[in-house]
Amino acid sequence: MRVAIYFFICVDLSLALFEEPALFPLPFLATSIAEVICLTAFCGRLVHFASITSRVVFWKDTKNICIMVTIVLTLIDLIIYGSLEAVHIHGVRWSRALRPVFLISCPESRQIRRAFRSIRNTLPDILYVFLLFLFSVLVFSLMALKLFGDRGLRTAEGAPYFTNILEIAFELYVLVTTANSPDVMMPAYNVNWWYSLYFITYIIINTYIFMSVFLAVVYNNYRKHLKNEIRKLAYLKRHKMIEAFNLLKVQVGTEFVVKEATWRQLAKVVAPDISSSHLELLLRISDEGQKGHVDKMNFLRLADLLNIQVVTVNIKRHPLESWVPWIYQSSASLLVQRMVRHRIFVWIYDIIILINAIFIALDEKNPFISCAEWLFLSLYVMEILLKLYTYEPTAYFGRRQFWNWFDTLIIIAALVATVTNTSIQSGQYHYQQILDIVLILRILRLLRVIVSVQRFRVIVTTLMNIGPTMLTFGGLVFVVYYAFAVIGMEMFHSKVHFFDPNFTTPDALVCGNPALKGSAFARDRYCKNNFNDLASSFIVLTELTVFLNFPLLAGGFALVTHQAAKLYFILFHAVVVILVVNIFIAFILEAFFVAY
Amino acid sequence: MRVAIYFFICVDLSLALFEEPALFPLPFLATSIAEVICLTAFCGRLVHFASITSRVVFWKDTKNICIMVTIVLTLIDLIIYGSLEAVHIHGVRWSRALRPVFLISCPESRQIRRAFRSIRNTLPDILYVFLLFLFSVLVFSLMALKLFGDRGLRTAEGAPYFTNILEIAFELYVLVTTANSPDVMMPAYNVNWWYSLYFITYIIINTYIFMSVFLAVVYNNYRKHLKNEIRKLAYLKRHKMIEAFNLLKVQVGTEFVVKEATWRQLAKVVAPDISSSHLELLLRISDEGQKGHVDKMNFLRLADLLNIQVVTVNIKRHPLESWVPWIYQSSASLLVQRMVRHRIFVWIYDIIILINAIFIALDEKNPFISCAEWLFLSLYVMEILLKLYTYEPTAYFGRRQFWNWFDTLIIIAALVATVTNTSIQSGQYHYQQILDIVLILRILRLLRVIVSVQRFRVIVTTLMNIGPTMLTFGGLVFVVYYAFAVIGMEMFHSKVHFFDPNFTTPDALVCGNPALKGSAFARDRYCKNNFNDLASSFIVLTELTVFLNFPLLAGGFALVTHQAAKLYFILFHAVVVILVVNIFIAFILEAFFVAY
Ligand code: NA
Repeated sequence: MRVAIYFFICVDLSLALFEEPALFPLPFLATSIAEVICLTAFCGRLVHFASITSRVVFWKDTKNICIMVTIVLTLIDLIIYGSLEAVHIHGVRWSRALRPVFLISCPESRQIRRAFRSIRNTLPDILYVFLLFLFSVLVFSLMALKLFGDRGLRTAEGAPYFTNILEIAFELYVLVTTANSPDVMMPAYNVNWWYSLYFITYIIINTYIFMSVFLAVVYNNYRKHLKNEIRKLAYLKRHKMIEAFNLLKVQVGTEFVVKEATWRQLAKVVAPDISSSHLELLLRISDEGQKGHVDKMNFLRLADLLNIQVVTVNIKRHPLESWVPWIYQSSASLLVQRMVRHRIFVWIYDIIILINAIFIALDEKNPFISCAEWLFLSLYVMEILLKLYTYEPTAYFGRRQFWNWFDTLIIIAALVATVTNTSIQSGQYHYQQILDIVLILRILRLLRVIVSVQRFRVIVTTLMNIGPTMLTFGGLVFVVYYAFAVIGMEMFHSKVHFFDPNFTTPDALVCGNPALKGSAFARDRYCKNNFNDLASSFIVLTELTVFLNFPLLAGGFALVTHQAAKLYFILFHAVVVILVVNIFIAFILEAFFVAY
Repeated sequence: MRVAIYFFICVDLSLALFEEPALFPLPFLATSIAEVICLTAFCGRLVHFASITSRVVFWKDTKNICIMVTIVLTLIDLIIYGSLEAVHIHGVRWSRALRPVFLISCPESRQIRRAFRSIRNTLPDILYVFLLFLFSVLVFSLMALKLFGDRGLRTAEGAPYFTNILEIAFELYVLVTTANSPDVMMPAYNVNWWYSLYFITYIIINTYIFMSVFLAVVYNNYRKHLKNEIRKLAYLKRHKMIEAFNLLKVQVGTEFVVKEATWRQLAKVVAPDISSSHLELLLRISDEGQKGHVDKMNFLRLADLLNIQVVTVNIKRHPLESWVPWIYQSSASLLVQRMVRHRIFVWIYDIIILINAIFIALDEKNPFISCAEWLFLSLYVMEILLKLYTYEPTAYFGRRQFWNWFDTLIIIAALVATVTNTSIQSGQYHYQQILDIVLILRILRLLRVIVSVQRFRVIVTTLMNIGPTMLTFGGLVFVVYYAFAVIGMEMFHSKVHFFDPNFTTPDALVCGNPALKGSAFARDRYCKNNFNDLASSFIVLTELTVFLNFPLLAGGFALVTHQAAKLYFILFHAVVVILVVNIFIAFILEAFFVAY
């Protein structure tokens, strides 16, 4: 059933690929039937859930109510849109922006819901800072209007400079990201040197101070929230352990205890793959006096004890030592092993990687360098074989030996890449994409240098530790992107068209929309950045997040629709960059504070 | 003597304004004589200091050794430069970059030295992260070379795209600041959509993750260092208090105590302006049993007790109440006072400010709006007078009533501004600069809105609390800028010349240097950004820090000298943006964590 629900959520979310504006167009009837089926499935799950829980619990749960409201709204929207379509009026499918609600409400998205709750708790604090920030932008806009508005200045593109308060406010909002930084200042700066002070003050206050304050508020709230969650979890755990103790306790003398046999049974049930030596160790700790029973205090510690990682020192002999001891223990073999364990062995391989990097940088058309490629690969393979000869293989590839795995996988990837490369080149056909991936894999082998430097390993390990949290974060970003993509598609689809870059027809030069004539959007051939389907929308939103190239994108889409379209981009920046990116930075800060 | 030393430090630092390349040129003989006089003064101070401290203490102090080494190096440099100059060979005055050492070493710069010590402690951690970061940039550069180098792509300016590994590394380093963000991607992106993934991955790893890690390391170290400093100070304080106790103690019964009279005397000496009621209060706390003496534990608390701010509730009557009680207590007067104290009074004035903002935005050439200006001003003045009528003036302008001062000063500034404006306009001459300042002052009055919103006040107060720390920070930035400015002047002076923007001679169009022909630097008329004197250099460095407009500046100066000049800009970015800006953000983060 769980799998079925996931399937329906995926279908429902991916419907945006087939609905107009579509990547793969399907008739409205098909997508609406699919949507109704999905809604029925969500409804069915809700009914099932209501039947197995008490009415109070069911109605108290916000997510059930959210699902119900979303289902009803979607049905209403479908009916309105369908009937308008029947009389050939084009409606807006606004309910599509609500679809991520189903993803958030499914039981496995607990982490995403927690993240949303955390954001909701941060909002009041953030809101006040944001209002103050907007106030600051407006005061600066007013100053700019008064200082520069009457001078008759012109921008590099010949447009009037700083004459409209709303345009100024937009430009200054964008200036916070420094995306338009020298350009927006130049006309004023050319008039008088002193005006640069205005812009420098603006950036210091609004970029450095306000953005730091946003980070401080988000991070502070995140820590507070985290502490609360941990406290709540610890309380719940203790509470449950006390309940378990009360169920299992027997009276011995004046105190209540749990018998050793019961304790052993319980431990076996909650941790089935625990080794018996590990279990004995835990029992020894819990039953300090060897009295044959565990008292309440020690019983409550069980959950914590089970969480402790016990490192079992592997004293297994190397398989070769048992099979061919006379060879493995020979003086030549011992010398090899000592060499491999020596520091210099690591250094030599670091130098080899460095030389390898230089060879990669050189022209690979040269046959000599092609050969060197094979030499390096065989050296790397030899290194791994030597290590496996020296260290016990199961210990070397143990579960916690991340860096050995990393090392080996990189070499295997490089090996596969080089072999593929040769076989493709010897054949007549070139697959550019495969060649590119092969190339990247071959270069990634340089990452092995990280393994040799202890401090580098610490940094990378710390970053890897936030991996699981990043998944939650990815879910959060997906939900926000999906909602913005759907709204963006409704607003901007088919306004801009992509033409092959080699086309030079007048239509292709303005992305198929005469409103773009002479704009920076068309000049820089941004036509590929459009909202004509879900995939393109996601790419545009990613670009906005990462490259902050507001001025061109927002300016272009405002030209083909209305100046108010800039609000969409400002809202996106406020939500994604101020909130989401700061959460990301807070994750990294926290990971480093814990690790260092 | 202290003032004299400060004077000589100022003279020594400002010599850069007069030395070639000079803002106000003076002959080499004059500046070198001035420098020798300064050095003699520093030498004299050092000799004086050596005579009053023990030899061990003197030689153990790093700053004395720093001063001596700098003096010797400066003298050597002066002699070499002077003798080269005598035979008409142009030398490099490299020792000028060392001048800030004198500023750092003077006794009042304790805070700056502490900041430098903190940075030195952070360096090993930062260095490893920076190396890993550079490694990442290099691996990505190698990938870019292999992926895009052989395609024969061209940039928007027609230059070959990504064919030289060093150029790629520079472009990618700049990409971290997103200063060249969409441009550097476009040629690859136009070939294939997938290549945008390369750039997105690059920015996520190097801009978001690495820059956050830099912040984490700097901030973490800052906190650790701060904790150590506080612990050390607390220890020192306790140690000194114990010494004082041992000096003053007398035996009463079995324990040692300090007599009340002695305690009172001591308190009077360390806090001369303490009121006698305040002193009695402290004594009551310290001598709990009213036994006429203070025991050791309570004695040690004296320093902390003196630090506690005692709020004396002002129950002074309004002067008008004493002078003309029959008017001040009349029912009409009481009504006015109740009105002023009411919340609605604040709201009405907020609305007035809002309307005022709209009027400012409108055209002020209109005579009606000019009149409104006076109306608003009189309303504001009336507000202050009403408040002074209602609240006791000395309490209203009390030492801790920051917001009342803020409010009043803004109104006075606006009043002065408007009066100046009218008198200038009624006269025939227009001083543009004064008019601009007047305009800014008039708009700044909108900041009064901050006073009415409690949450806004909290945010601003928190930011103000880091003001004193920011002074230290300013010193730090000055020292770094000075050193970089001197180096920049030696490298780049007279390479680029500024011409009036209206000049269109071929020479003016290339900033007087044919190497800039066709470059973005010349096209965007960046000629004003040069290293031809100390002031210009400081401006260029500020622009680099704030606007991050690397590509044009570094590209331009590399064209007029050598590609290696880009290293100067990279080094500046690494020092200022990665280290100094992160310290700034850490200050703000810490201030908010403490306040919230
Ligand atoms: Na930028």
